[in-house]
Amino acid sequence: MRWGIIILLSVSWGNKYNMKKLKRIREWTTIPGNFQPGAYNSITDVPGVTVGQVTIKTNDARTGVTIISPTADDIFLHPIPAAVAVGNGFGKLVGALQVEELGEIESLIGLTNTLSVAAVLQGLINYHVPKMPEGRNSINIVVGETNDSRLNDIRGCHVTPKHVAKAIAALSKDVEEGSVGAGAGTTCFGFKGGIGTASRIIPGAVSGEENDYIVGTLVQSNYGGNLSVYGKNIPKPQIVSQDGSCMIVILTNAPISPLQLKRVAKRGLIGMTNTGSYMSHGSGDFAIAASNYEKNRHVGKTAKQGCSYYFLDNSQLNPFFEATAEAVQEALYNSLTMAYGAEKNGIFYPGFNFAEYL
Amino acid sequence: MRWGIIILLSVSWGNKYNMKKLKRIREWTTIPGNFQPGAYNSITDVPGVTVGQVTIKTNDARTGVTIISPTADDIFLHPIPAAVAVGNGFGKLVGALQVEELGEIESLIGLTNTLSVAAVLQGLINYHVPKMPEGRNSINIVVGETNDSRLNDIRGCHVTPKHVAKAIAALSKDVEEGSVGAGAGTTCFGFKGGIGTASRIIPGAVSGEENDYIVGTLVQSNYGGNLSVYGKNIPKPQIVSQDGSCMIVILTNAPISPLQLKRVAKRGLIGMTNTGSYMSHGSGDFAIAASNYEKNRHVGKTAKQGCSYYFLDNSQLNPFFEATAEAVQEALYNSLTMAYGAEKNGIFYPGFNFAEYL
Amino acid sequence: MRWGIIILLSVSWGNKYNMKKLKRIREWTTIPGNFQPGAYNSITDVPGVTVGQVTIKTNDARTGVTIISPTADDIFLHPIPAAVAVGNGFGKLVGALQVEELGEIESLIGLTNTLSVAAVLQGLINYHVPKMPEGRNSINIVVGETNDSRLNDIRGCHVTPKHVAKAIAALSKDVEEGSVGAGAGTTCFGFKGGIGTASRIIPGAVSGEENDYIVGTLVQSNYGGNLSVYGKNIPKPQIVSQDGSCMIVILTNAPISPLQLKRVAKRGLIGMTNTGSYMSHGSGDFAIAASNYEKNRHVGKTAKQGCSYYFLDNSQLNPFFEATAEAVQEALYNSLTMAYGAEKNGIFYPGFNFAEYL
Amino acid sequence: MRWGIIILLSVSWGNKYNMKKLKRIREWTTIPGNFQPGAYNSITDVPGVTVGQVTIKTNDARTGVTIISPTADDIFLHPIPAAVAVGNGFGKLVGALQVEELGEIESLIGLTNTLSVAAVLQGLINYHVPKMPEGRNSINIVVGETNDSRLNDIRGCHVTPKHVAKAIAALSKDVEEGSVGAGAGTTCFGFKGGIGTASRIIPGAVSGEENDYIVGTLVQSNYGGNLSVYGKNIPKPQIVSQDGSCMIVILTNAPISPLQLKRVAKRGLIGMTNTGSYMSHGSGDFAIAASNYEKNRHVGKTAKQGCSYYFLDNSQLNPFFEATAEAVQEALYNSLTMAYGAEKNGIFYPGFNFAEYL
Repeated sequence: MRWGIIILLSVSWGNKYNMKKLKRIREWTTIPGNFQPGAYNSITDVPGVTVGQVTIKTNDARTGVTIISPTADDIFLHPIPAAVAVGNGFGKLVGALQVEELGEIESLIGLTNTLSVAAVLQGLINYHVPKMPEGRNSINIVVGETNDSRLNDIRGCHVTPKHVAKAIAALSKDVEEGSVGAGAGTTCFGFKGGIGTASRIIPGAVSGEENDYIVGTLVQSNYGGNLSVYGKNIPKPQIVSQDGSCMIVILTNAPISPLQLKRVAKRGLIGMTNTGSYMSHGSGDFAIAASNYEKNRHVGKTAKQGCSYYFLDNSQLNPFFEATAEAVQEALYNSLTMAYGAEKNGIFYPGFNFAEYL
Repeated sequence: MRWGIIILLSVSWGNKYNMKKLKRIREWTTIPGNFQPGAYNSITDVPGVTVGQVTIKTNDARTGVTIISPTADDIFLHPIPAAVAVGNGFGKLVGALQVEELGEIESLIGLTNTLSVAAVLQGLINYHVPKMPEGRNSINIVVGETNDSRLNDIRGCHVTPKHVAKAIAALSKDVEEGSVGAGAGTTCFGFKGGIGTASRIIPGAVSGEENDYIVGTLVQSNYGGNLSVYGKNIPKPQIVSQDGSCMIVILTNAPISPLQLKRVAKRGLIGMTNTGSYMSHGSGDFAIAASNYEKNRHVGKTAKQGCSYYFLDNSQLNPFFEATAEAVQEALYNSLTMAYGAEKNGIFYPGFNFAEYL
Repeated sequence: MRWGIIILLSVSWGNKYNMKKLKRIREWTTIPGNFQPGAYNSITDVPGVTVGQVTIKTNDARTGVTIISPTADDIFLHPIPAAVAVGNGFGKLVGALQVEELGEIESLIGLTNTLSVAAVLQGLINYHVPKMPEGRNSINIVVGETNDSRLNDIRGCHVTPKHVAKAIAALSKDVEEGSVGAGAGTTCFGFKGGIGTASRIIPGAVSGEENDYIVGTLVQSNYGGNLSVYGKNIPKPQIVSQDGSCMIVILTNAPISPLQLKRVAKRGLIGMTNTGSYMSHGSGDFAIAASNYEKNRHVGKTAKQGCSYYFLDNSQLNPFFEATAEAVQEALYNSLTMAYGAEKNGIFYPGFNFAEYL
Repeated sequence: MRWGIIILLSVSWGNKYNMKKLKRIREWTTIPGNFQPGAYNSITDVPGVTVGQVTIKTNDARTGVTIISPTADDIFLHPIPAAVAVGNGFGKLVGALQVEELGEIESLIGLTNTLSVAAVLQGLINYHVPKMPEGRNSINIVVGETNDSRLNDIRGCHVTPKHVAKAIAALSKDVEEGSVGAGAGTTCFGFKGGIGTASRIIPGAVSGEENDYIVGTLVQSNYGGNLSVYGKNIPKPQIVSQDGSCMIVILTNAPISPLQLKRVAKRGLIGMTNTGSYMSHGSGDFAIAASNYEKNRHVGKTAKQGCSYYFLDNSQLNPFFEATAEAVQEALYNSLTMAYGAEKNGIFYPGFNFAEYL
């Protein structure tokens, strides 16, 4: 009987598990660190950045798509400086090699589950290609993933290119956190993981620049280790594999060069390990960083003429490094505290309720 | 009128262009070098290796899929040592980062056009995933591409996952060359490019091993530069962009470690530049190398127990380096000499007829 | 008057600063983590490993040399699997490129100050070359450094090749920590830094192997950030630059391949960032990892014959990753707690007295 | 008797070997390619670039030092964009990791023999450090090497820091080629190798820039393979090891970014493989590329304020790629044709006399 099977495999999101109040980590505890968050403590605090998500929760599916738009422009026509850092390469990040070669990103960024990378890649092709000028027939699309099979029927490939179109249509400044989009089915440290975001302002007085700049990050948390929240060690809710993955997207409006963005991306990984991960063998831990600084945005692959750029000096980067690590760490906690628990096949991944540990 | 439009955009494969006799380069000229080819001078001379191709030539489509199976085993259950070398990273090679991290490949290798990577990735997911043991929900699939838009309606995305299934069903020891599979629509040095293959035997007497080993290569040629055939410079048939790409697959049954395979892969790129390429900016030039040496094939990602390996000493690698460069160079010439000319939008890419230059 | 000048520039090591009792961190506090240290909680717990140090404290000089011998064999004749991980590349680590290419190390490892790399390199040449067989005229020597100019007259280049010979003569199982050898003049988080060591046993029952294995680490600490000791944040003793560097040496007797050692080395960097570093711009943060597993030690660059190896499966690496991060973190704390304070030009870098923060 | 011993080991430079007329390759044959050389077809055609060399030919020593100054400024105060490409990493190139991290070079470039890297490093420290402003105590010095032990008593370590001072004092626009400086004792393809140089003008009309730019290269040739001179295969003069190394320095006044310089450096390696090398196992093949474009020269590591840059678009790089490969190839031939033969221990490495092959 089909119903029986559905019961058996289904993911429960019952009320009894969801009594916890969803709060961002900052509502639970004082956040240490040297930098203040932006207005919404969100990746979308970075001017021009928007996020759109589609969550798929039907029958056995607990998965989705998260799309990040790094600029307000058509990014294909106006690619921006970018870089990727590999923490642990057991992952299927698409598009990294061309970002590495050219130091720029020219597509929206998609996040999803491991076996839906093809669907999201196709969805982004479907979005970008028709808008590309005639004669331009190559685009390097970036899609990251983590493996949500602990809660999702991943082999069912429930994500389709249409979900990508829907997520793009939903691009906005509001970023839902927790069990949403590409984080719908992820788990983290034995808890329910998901999407989290945070940001940090780097005052001009600190960096030596005239303007303040902002670094924003969005994470898809699905990894393990020994969870520690700002020095407080959290016991594992259950015996679980330490493997899993973490995708980290870092955007900024600061004038940072491709080579410098690689350095920034590496510091995103520190934000992750600071939560208690040692980047397990089976973890696909990547950080991608990009800068949409206004005046560096005109790089175009067919320009055939030189461009002027304005970049920070390397000696100014320390606050950006520190702020990036801070923001990623907080975003990861948000991905936990903003998610309700979920269950599959009798294994329950509780929502992380920091109140219990205060 | 639709017909008119089709005429306008159609790719002509008329007889007048195809008077040349298709011959492999070895039939035209003496091949310099220090190593002999295998029985069929093909990547499939490597024991266990098979190739399957599907060519799509309908209306505006001139594209396809080439699948290479590096072992006779289920490669997901028995991944093999592998590595990737990046010549120029303006390409969309999927799966490289995990190959780099783990030093192994666990999927069939797919080749196609730039905008069909998602379709081939999905096709390979469809093939591999159902065969994966329960509880294994992650697979790192390798798909390479070059951009065949000079002859193919690439935006039409004519490749589907079903073509992948068909190509897998066609896996065999026979490798068709020229305008076939992923090479159906590629061009090279202003000529029609395509698929080529070649192999080299490394005698035990040369390497210091008891057994002879073989290195085989398959290439998808779609790049530019100043074509030179074993020292003979060939004038460009027309003014064309130098950009384009080259995918190089190198397989061997020699006991070569992941780190050593990275070195072998780099020598594949020398085979390419020896034909007259300087790896132009817009070129996605990658070589992937893997070893299916029998006794190293049992590496499995869930073994949880150590493995014994047998690897050549680095001091034995020179003949493998040289043979790899030789084989790739010859495979690239074969991709040219085995292809008939083709035309799109009034630009004709002739089949390279080496007879004219003798 | 020369005396006056010496006073002015001299480094004070007066008794009033040295009232603290030198204890290793483990004597002060319970060490969290999942693994137990070896007999001496030292890199020399790894069979075959010895360390020799020379400390130079004369007039303005506060510097020295630390030599690590990764095997009991002649390592040039029997190089061992090795890899380097770059945390932040603002450093002068010599020898990394060949280790990367071949996946092996063939020399003793030297540590010193930034401007004495040439002297230590020469000292190691003087040691190794005369012992090399006739006809072998190339050796890849590994020398790391951090910049001890806050306490040392670094421009004086007080280290000479003779100090290297002396440090080699002193190679033993005893490892002094704190302000010794290459750590004589380093500072860390505004405190006096130095040399630290620690080790971890990975039981066979955990790794799935028959035998227990051990990971040992030795560090040269000279970096900044926001010091945190197992979750306890330590206020900065003074305003200091966050820049600086950290050299991390990781040795093991476990059968770990070169590619896997790169992964292990990366986890060494996590041990560093876990102390509160975000790897500042001016930091040369490197980890080098090598395995002297008995049966893999016979790799020789001129063998001209293949070798058998035994390597752990990647699926067994997690405990090694975690243990490595644990050991490096503890070694770094030891480098602090085992150092007396020191002063130069009126700036005092206190010895870190954890007792004050309990 | 000492005299007897000297006879036995001595390197002969007798007249009978030196009857060949030294000519640059361009005097022997038409050089194919698409770009014209600069006024002197030398790396010093690049404005601001100078070269100084010291040759050591005493008793058993046949070695030396070559110093390249990439700018007319104090390069430590005004570091310039730079990058390194690794062809084959069996070499001891010092300084590469920091160039990679920061994308800049801040020292003169030294070339010497493998076992004299320490001496040249010390020599460059001795030169740079006293000129560095107070409080600046770190410098990343770049020294490359090849192994000249076939003709040089390399273990004798005949190079001293004083030779570096002498080479720096000799910095000028004149570049001697052949058996000079760091090329005094090198061999290549079984012939006498050495120092070679060449340059190429990239007209503004080709690159799309207002100004013409120039790419210059200097090489230290010491490698093997199957020598081919613009398509003409040259038989080996004797059975020799294919191993050896090649150092390639590429300088330009074009506005090229660090990431782009890495791409340019890779094309230098193509110039090398085009001569007939497949980069043998024992080869340390590196290319370092730097740009002294006037307006990008003000990057300074302590500026603490952002900088404006002007960089070519990636779409303009193809002519620079091609010109670089052309120049390096010609420089390598010059290193051969400009060297007289030499002998050690009864093995004669003839000067390459292209006249014999016309």
